Amino acid sequence: MIIPVILCGGSGTRLWPLSRRDFAKQHVPILGGGSPFQRTLARVAADPVFGRPLVVTGAGGRFMAADQAAAAGVAIDMLIEPEPRDTLPAIAAAAEWAARRDPDAVVLVLPSDHLIPDAAAFAAAARRAAAIAAAGDLVAFGLTPSGPATGYGYIRPGAALPSGVRRVAAFVEKPNAERAARLIAEGCLWNGGMFCFAAGAGRAEIAARAPEAAAAVAAALDGAVEDLGALRLGPAFADAPKISFDYGVMEKTDRAAVVEADFGWSDIGDWRELWAQSPKDATGVALEGDAVAVDCRDSYLRSDGRLVCAIGVEGLAVVDTPDAVLVAPLDRAQEIKGLVATLSAGGRREATEPARVHRPWGWYQTMDLGDRFRVKRIQVAPGKKLSLQKHHHRAEHWVVVRGTAEVTRDDEVILLRENESVFLPLGCVHRLANPGKIPVEIIEVQTGAYLEEDDILRFEDDFGRG
Amino acid sequence: MIIPVILCGGSGTRLWPLSRRDFAKQHVPILGGGSPFQRTLARVAADPVFGRPLVVTGAGGRFMAADQAAAAGVAIDMLIEPEPRDTLPAIAAAAEWAARRDPDAVVLVLPSDHLIPDAAAFAAAARRAAAIAAAGDLVAFGLTPSGPATGYGYIRPGAALPSGVRRVAAFVEKPNAERAARLIAEGCLWNGGMFCFAAGAGRAEIAARAPEAAAAVAAALDGAVEDLGALRLGPAFADAPKISFDYGVMEKTDRAAVVEADFGWSDIGDWRELWAQSPKDATGVALEGDAVAVDCRDSYLRSDGRLVCAIGVEGLAVVDTPDAVLVAPLDRAQEIKGLVATLSAGGRREATEPARVHRPWGWYQTMDLGDRFRVKRIQVAPGKKLSLQKHHHRAEHWVVVRGTAEVTRDDEVILLRENESVFLPLGCVHRLANPGKIPVEIIEVQTGAYLEEDDILRFEDDFGRG
Repeated sequence: MIIPVILCGGSGTRLWPLSRRDFAKQHVPILGGGSPFQRTLARVAADPVFGRPLVVTGAGGRFMAADQAAAAGVAIDMLIEPEPRDTLPAIAAAAEWAARRDPDAVVLVLPSDHLIPDAAAFAAAARRAAAIAAAGDLVAFGLTPSGPATGYGYIRPGAALPSGVRRVAAFVEKPNAERAARLIAEGCLWNGGMFCFAAGAGRAEIAARAPEAAAAVAAALDGAVEDLGALRLGPAFADAPKISFDYGVMEKTDRAAVVEADFGWSDIGDWRELWAQSPKDATGVALEGDAVAVDCRDSYLRSDGRLVCAIGVEGLAVVDTPDAVLVAPLDRAQEIKGLVATLSAGGRREATEPARVHRPWGWYQTMDLGDRFRVKRIQVAPGKKLSLQKHHHRAEHWVVVRGTAEVTRDDEVILLRENESVFLPLGCVHRLANPGKIPVEIIEVQTGAYLEEDDILRFEDDFGRG
Repeated sequence: MIIPVILCGGSGTRLWPLSRRDFAKQHVPILGGGSPFQRTLARVAADPVFGRPLVVTGAGGRFMAADQAAAAGVAIDMLIEPEPRDTLPAIAAAAEWAARRDPDAVVLVLPSDHLIPDAAAFAAAARRAAAIAAAGDLVAFGLTPSGPATGYGYIRPGAALPSGVRRVAAFVEKPNAERAARLIAEGCLWNGGMFCFAAGAGRAEIAARAPEAAAAVAAALDGAVEDLGALRLGPAFADAPKISFDYGVMEKTDRAAVVEADFGWSDIGDWRELWAQSPKDATGVALEGDAVAVDCRDSYLRSDGRLVCAIGVEGLAVVDTPDAVLVAPLDRAQEIKGLVATLSAGGRREATEPARVHRPWGWYQTMDLGDRFRVKRIQVAPGKKLSLQKHHHRAEHWVVVRGTAEVTRDDEVILLRENESVFLPLGCVHRLANPGKIPVEIIEVQTGAYLEEDDILRFEDDFGRG
């Protein structure tokens, strides 16, 4: 039995405007279906060799991760990092957590934002790695390169072991194209960021190579508290050095082995990669959503709702979202990071927040914004409720368009069915809850002189927000 | 005194998705300001040589034309064509209308969708043309070509006249590039579609060269009725052959003269032309609205609200509207017409209707659309009211977010101020009116199983709709 440890703390912007700081790549629905995180869950759920996954995530992404796991129908354990500290502390905490339950358990560390379409080949490779790991080695996955990619690190295999695999001679940083070609010629493999080890052996090796981190995560687990179905690590976690597991442990240990794997794999690190992984027509055009291509070639056109039409473009990504549109050559997809940094520095909300803002209770999205009003669509999951709150600068109308809502307004509690509405005057204390079995959706019309999220005074909250 | 006759019946799609069948190019705001129609009005309003303009338009565009004229602060007369019959019947009707008032009046026929930035040069050319026209000639404007354009027709000047201008030897159809270069070498001029003649002389020439059209428009004027401040031509108008004024009169008359004009002129016939007319930065990039260009060249980026970002594109048009996005090379802008035809044949609403639908009383726009609900923003102009109506399949909530609305609901009349709302149950007879001095805006939340515009039963209407 292998315990998948899924690292879900990243927040990439390289798929902007689809992914944002507050809507990480691993949670973005892609390829017409689930998110990379959900695909990772499905991959391990598909083979009985894998046990219940442990998801390690940040405070910001925890509800999204839990919601997406629930939507995928996969039961998970969850560790919440008080702050992001790169992969070593995350993996160390997972190793400590697993070793405390069973030091002989084999854990398989998986990024949550990678794509491995062939689940059977993946499971076979995991079994091979687990067999080596059970004997005490720390096993990295070396992916057979399909070309001199410059976006990945490389693993240089070393001496052969009796088990048939090889030691890791070195981890190589992302190379330029020329060096990448040379590395491949020398037999190097792509570093897929996947690691397999027995919990006890991994913990011991981390303690030997990164003692500060080991101590910090042990203390963080000692101080961990149950928090709405997850385990929130204690504040000692912040004492762990911010460092990657490759650099802090795998490069230093003399027990690193590499299992070569040749399943198709992608880190979908930018639009070019996502285009490469997408189904395409004979002209190399990938369409997602309501997109129309006329005489285009080798392009990626994505709509989130609007009609997107392209004529005669080549090698281009066109990505439409409710609040931002990106047009860029696939070959320059790496430059998006810089664009987003510039937008972010300029205070553009679109750089960091998605149009649909996810909350522990569901989500909301601004659909219309005028001079003194704002219209939102709000969805509340079954059994969830928003905080008891009031606003100083706005009144709100709520119209239920789906499901049944329970509305608290000062001293009243009102049950609102589809097509019913309520008015919440400025200053009233109110709360929206979904007592039902299906999601409730409301249209909220706010009116007032100031309509930002920070005009909120919370009295009670199921999710511990002040 | 020159009477400008502004032809406002066109419905171009070459600036799609900005222009649509139901939102013609002449009414689209461009270059950060007014529409081409409004710019045409402003051009003639700027010089005292021009009298009150006569706008000839279709039934579909009449309210838009009246609204935009009012917004531009220009008083107009208006003839409404019962159906579009190309330019000859429209100009013949205008000539007949003007000649009945004063046969010596000089009229200047102007397309409503062209751009002439230099109003003074335009007025000077109009004065020259009017002087010739007063003597009985039909004067065309020949624009000095700035290059071998293939998008325009050409005028070949002929024999010199004593007045200093020349006869028209021939009107030449849009040429290919090679022929265009030859035409220019031969001294041909662009045909700007502008004509100047004395009303009586023009009427006589039309009667001689296009007697059917002359008879039809005379009968149509005899049968015209006052209609909400405009003159609606009678049904005889449909008897006029569908033909252009160039082809049906100017090519046949022996009184055609051409005044050469060298003011800057553009028919903004496609995105490339609009880009050419737009202010651009040093790299040739024109931005309109909330658009960001990183390392782009010679491109046109337009946003209608969303953040539009382009990286490293060259020679590209990116046009974002609330319901459709277009990406196409400026050099292939001519292919948009075909795309729109295909979309239209496929029943795509976006091909023909704009997101913001203009009505005689104001406009509405769908802001959100779900499974069993639709959210609209509705604006009603001061003093206007919608029809008294009911729906069989939907209920509506109205929330006033600006101004004061007068709502009729069955037997009640309710005055709703900002931040007040009303519920209109399925089947109730209702009406929305703006009794105030500023526009009223409401958010309408519709709920029901069928939410299309055709679920409407009208009882009374200020605008004669059934």
